[in-house]
Amino acid sequence: MSTTTNTNTNTNTTTATTATRGQGQSIDLAGKIGLIDGHWQPRVVAEMNDYQFKVVKVLGAFEWHRHAATDETFIVLEGALCIALRGPGYAQGHAIVLTAGQMAVVPRGIEHKPCATVETKLLLIEPRGVVNTGDGDAGGRTVQNDQWI
Amino acid sequence: MSTTTNTNTNTNTTTATTATRGQGQSIDLAGKIGLIDGHWQPRVVAEMNDYQFKVVKVLGAFEWHRHAATDETFIVLEGALCIALRGPGYAQGHAIVLTAGQMAVVPRGIEHKPCATVETKLLLIEPRGVVNTGDGDAGGRTVQNDQWI
Repeated sequence: MSTTTNTNTNTNTTTATTATRGQGQSIDLAGKIGLIDGHWQPRVVAEMNDYQFKVVKVLGAFEWHRHAATDETFIVLEGALCIALRGPGYAQGHAIVLTAGQMAVVPRGIEHKPCATVETKLLLIEPRGVVNTGDGDAGGRTVQNDQWI
Repeated sequence: MSTTTNTNTNTNTTTATTATRGQGQSIDLAGKIGLIDGHWQPRVVAEMNDYQFKVVKVLGAFEWHRHAATDETFIVLEGALCIALRGPGYAQGHAIVLTAGQMAVVPRGIEHKPCATVETKLLLIEPRGVVNTGDGDAGGRTVQNDQWI
């Protein structure tokens, strides 16, 4: 029986992964995150239909933003993430707290502000083309989409 | 700051989760799996747009099946999963091996056969309405869809 793993750390990984859309192979999420420089720099590891799986490591607070057209999923792989929410149906000061092995779906249109007091590793799932800073003022924290790792 | 966690184990959990589509709250994946009786019994924990997140524990071999219309994602939370693949682009005997913290996307139309030699806990992601046994003969292993936990 032949098997595949995707633990390459050389620069060829990006090209190979993009060509197959990351499909049909094992993807080691922590291994992929280990290849990323800096926080709040999501990188695509695979696609499912028109959705993308992105890994990211985060630390500190991100900006308030929202995605009017789509829900967004956060899965914590390591560390702890707080996602403050504001909008219809959420009391002032409402927040979701996630630790490793926990996930949350932020509903479309709901403003949210992720933050982490320790370095935290995440898997994000959202449609292809979603901008990390949402629909508003992009500011200086917008990351170019479709950067594969 | 108010926080939400979703660690209820009483029967009200199902109703509350379905009403919100599991959104806007922390979902503890291992905790949810702990509520499931039996193997190969996926249960929905949240929706993102028209996709569902399903948790399942598995042991032994499942049937060969395929989903002609959609890719399907497997994320291993605990244990180890082998997914044999057959179809265009895959050599005979090809298989993906996944351990905890690893994921794979099975491309649409590709026959696959998951198996686990130890009890393994998974998160599945696929469009709402996908049948666990795929497009072929449902056999006795088809599970009713939209069972929330």
